[in-house]
Amino acid sequence: MQPMITLMTDFGQADGYVAAMKGVLLSSCPEARIIDAAHDIPPGDIEAGAWVLREYARFYPEDTIHVCVVDPGVGSPREALLLELDGQVFIGPDNGLFSWVIYGASEQRIRVIDRPFDGADSPSTTFHGRDIFAWAAGVLARGSIVPGTETSDAYMLKGLQPSGSGMHIQGRIVHIDHFGNCITNLPCGMLGRFAEISWKLRCGRLRFTHHNRTYSDVAPGEALLLTGSHQMLELAVNGSPAALTYGIKCNDAVVLEQMEVDRERF
Amino acid sequence: MQPMITLMTDFGQADGYVAAMKGVLLSSCPEARIIDAAHDIPPGDIEAGAWVLREYARFYPEDTIHVCVVDPGVGSPREALLLELDGQVFIGPDNGLFSWVIYGASEQRIRVIDRPFDGADSPSTTFHGRDIFAWAAGVLARGSIVPGTETSDAYMLKGLQPSGSGMHIQGRIVHIDHFGNCITNLPCGMLGRFAEISWKLRCGRLRFTHHNRTYSDVAPGEALLLTGSHQMLELAVNGSPAALTYGIKCNDAVVLEQMEVDRERF
Amino acid sequence: MQPMITLMTDFGQADGYVAAMKGVLLSSCPEARIIDAAHDIPPGDIEAGAWVLREYARFYPEDTIHVCVVDPGVGSPREALLLELDGQVFIGPDNGLFSWVIYGASEQRIRVIDRPFDGADSPSTTFHGRDIFAWAAGVLARGSIVPGTETSDAYMLKGLQPSGSGMHIQGRIVHIDHFGNCITNLPCGMLGRFAEISWKLRCGRLRFTHHNRTYSDVAPGEALLLTGSHQMLELAVNGSPAALTYGIKCNDAVVLEQMEVDRERF
Repeated sequence: MQPMITLMTDFGQADGYVAAMKGVLLSSCPEARIIDAAHDIPPGDIEAGAWVLREYARFYPEDTIHVCVVDPGVGSPREALLLELDGQVFIGPDNGLFSWVIYGASEQRIRVIDRPFDGADSPSTTFHGRDIFAWAAGVLARGSIVPGTETSDAYMLKGLQPSGSGMHIQGRIVHIDHFGNCITNLPCGMLGRFAEISWKLRCGRLRFTHHNRTYSDVAPGEALLLTGSHQMLELAVNGSPAALTYGIKCNDAVVLEQMEVDRERF
Repeated sequence: MQPMITLMTDFGQADGYVAAMKGVLLSSCPEARIIDAAHDIPPGDIEAGAWVLREYARFYPEDTIHVCVVDPGVGSPREALLLELDGQVFIGPDNGLFSWVIYGASEQRIRVIDRPFDGADSPSTTFHGRDIFAWAAGVLARGSIVPGTETSDAYMLKGLQPSGSGMHIQGRIVHIDHFGNCITNLPCGMLGRFAEISWKLRCGRLRFTHHNRTYSDVAPGEALLLTGSHQMLELAVNGSPAALTYGIKCNDAVVLEQMEVDRERF
Repeated sequence: MQPMITLMTDFGQADGYVAAMKGVLLSSCPEARIIDAAHDIPPGDIEAGAWVLREYARFYPEDTIHVCVVDPGVGSPREALLLELDGQVFIGPDNGLFSWVIYGASEQRIRVIDRPFDGADSPSTTFHGRDIFAWAAGVLARGSIVPGTETSDAYMLKGLQPSGSGMHIQGRIVHIDHFGNCITNLPCGMLGRFAEISWKLRCGRLRFTHHNRTYSDVAPGEALLLTGSHQMLELAVNGSPAALTYGIKCNDAVVLEQMEVDRERF
C-alpha cells in the first residue's frame, strides 16, 4: 500500500513552506500519499497544535506517518523526535507538540532523530520542517531507517489533566476551535461522578447546571454545555462563537463542583 | 479506478476536523483519492456553500463523491442526504446545501441516509461530517451500500431564480467571492431579451448600461458588469473588491430592466 | 509514474475556483496527482506569487507540472505560457509570475500557448486558471501535446538582483512571510565580501552589524539578521512578526555597506 503521510503546520497557505515540504517528501518517496491535516495552526502555538493533532490522529490507519511542525524553537538545542504510538508514527520537534497523543497512547516508543548531516548537506537552521522532519518522513516512507537514539523522555505540556478530586474538579480551556467553541480538559465521563447530586460548571461569566446534546438544543445565541466530538466537555453558543461572546481564552479556568444549594438541602 | 472524493466544509484549516474526516475516509477506503474542494466556507453559511458547490461539481468525472459539510443544525432532526445527480454523488445535511446542484440537475435520485447505529458506535451529536457523512462516503467508495430511504424532497433555498418577467427582472446577489466580485442569479443569456432595446442593471449605488468582457476592459478602480466564469452576470471592480467598495452584500437586490429614456424615445 | 501537478493560486479556500481547476485536471487525466502548493497568495500579488514559487519548485522531481495562477490581467492580451525550466514544467500567465524561477534556471524553453478554441468551447474571459492553465496541464499530464509557439521572451519583474557594487549594495525586501519575517534579495553569500571588514545592514529603523544562526539565538522580541531557508538574508524578530513590529513592507530598501566607523579606525 502507498505510505500515508499527514502534514500539520503553522505555515499558513500564503507561502511556499508547506509546498517545499511536500516536494522533499515526493522526491524521496514518489508514491507517498500526502494528506493536508491543518496548516493554519496559529504561528508558534504549540498548545493548539498538540490539541489539533489529538483530534485527528486516532482516525488514521496503522502505519500512517504524521509530520507535525509547530516549531518556534527551530535551530535551538530542542531535539527532533520520531515517535511510535499505538502503531502510528509521529515526527516533529520535541517541544510538547506530541503531549496529547503521548498521553492517550497505550504503547509508545520514542527516538531522538540523529542528524547525519555535514557540510553542503547540512539542514538549514530555520526550516527543519523541510530539512529534517519531511526528510525523515520520506526516508521512512520509502522503507529506509531513520537514524535515531531511543529515549524515554519527551517534553510534555503541563495541565493535560484536570486537578482536584471528588466533587471539586479544576480544569481549563484547552482549545478554542474555528467556531469559537471552547473545549475543556474535562472528559465528559466526569459528569458521572455527579450522577445523583446536582453540579455546576463555571468558566468566567458562564454557569451551567445541566448538559445538552447538541448546539441546536438551545435557542440561537444561547450558551450550552455539551459533550464535544472529542469526548470532552465543551462550552458553546448556538450559532455564535462562545469564545468571543463570553471573552473566553485558552487556559481559562473551568470548575466543576457540587452545587452548594444541594449541599444545604442534604 | 480509485474512487474520487471531494470535501467542502466550513471547518477552516486551524482545527483537526477536516483531518479527522479524511482519516475516517482513508480507514474505510484506503485507495480513495481525497480532493480538498474548499474549507473556508464562512461558518454556518449554507448559501455560500451551496453556491460554491455549484462552481466546481460539474467539472468532476462521473461517480465522483462530493462530501459537503456546512451544518449548523448538526444533531437536530434535519436529515442526512445521499443524492445522485447526473451521475455524481453528493453527501451532506438536508439544509439547502444542495439547492443549486439539484436545481441544475437533469436526473436526480435522493435518499435519506438511515443511521444503523446504536450504543458504542453511535455517531456524535456534534460532528456528523466525521461520523455520518465521511462514514457514508467511505462505505460507498469501497463499493458497499449506504442504507437509505428514497425521498423526493430535499430542503431548497429560496430565490434561486430571479422573479419578474419580460423587461423587468428582479434578481439578487447570490455570492461574494474571494476577490469581492458580486455574482448575481441572472444568467448572462438574459441580456438577450434586450437585444434591440437599451437596458440598465442596478444594484445599490451601481448602475450599468453595458456589458464588458473582462476585468481589465475598464481602468483600475472602475466598476463593470460582465459574464462570470459561472455564466451568471457578475458585478466587479478592476483590481479591487466591488463588494467592499460599493457596500454590496449577499442577497442585495439586482434589477435588470428596459431603460426608461428608451421607452420615451419609441 | 503518475504525473504530478502542483497548484498555486490567489483564489483562497472559500470559493469553488481551486476545486473547479482540480475537476478539469482530473477529468482530463484521472491518474494525475494534484498537490496543493499555496492558495492564499494575496489577490493579484504577482510579486508574492513569484517568490513563493521559487520557494518550493526546486524541491520537486523532474517532470513535475507547476500550475500557477495569480492573474489580475486575465482576459487581456497577456499571453499564456508553458515553460520548461531545468526539467520541470510551469504553466500560467505571462505577467512576471515566473521571474524568479526563470532567473534561477540553467536551461529554459518558453512557449506561448496557442488557444485552439472557438465557439461553444471558448475559454471564459475571466477564469483562465480553469479554462486554459488547468486544461493545458491536463493535456500535458495525459501525454498529449499543448499547441504552442516558441518565444524567448517572458515578462520579468524588475529588481530581482540587488544593485550597487563592491562595499555598498542596495537591495530590497522581496517577501514578507506568514510569520512576518522579511526576506531580502541579498544572497547570504554576499556577506563574504565583508570577510575582513565590518559591515552594517539597514532597513527602515533596523540596523544590524552581525548575523545570527536562528531565531532563538536572540531573546524573544529582539530583532536579528539571519540566512533564511531560501539562502537569502532575512530580517526577523524572535517570536514576533518583524514586518509588523518595524513597519517593514515589500519593496522597502535594504542597504548593506562597509561600516563607516571602521573606516576611520583603520
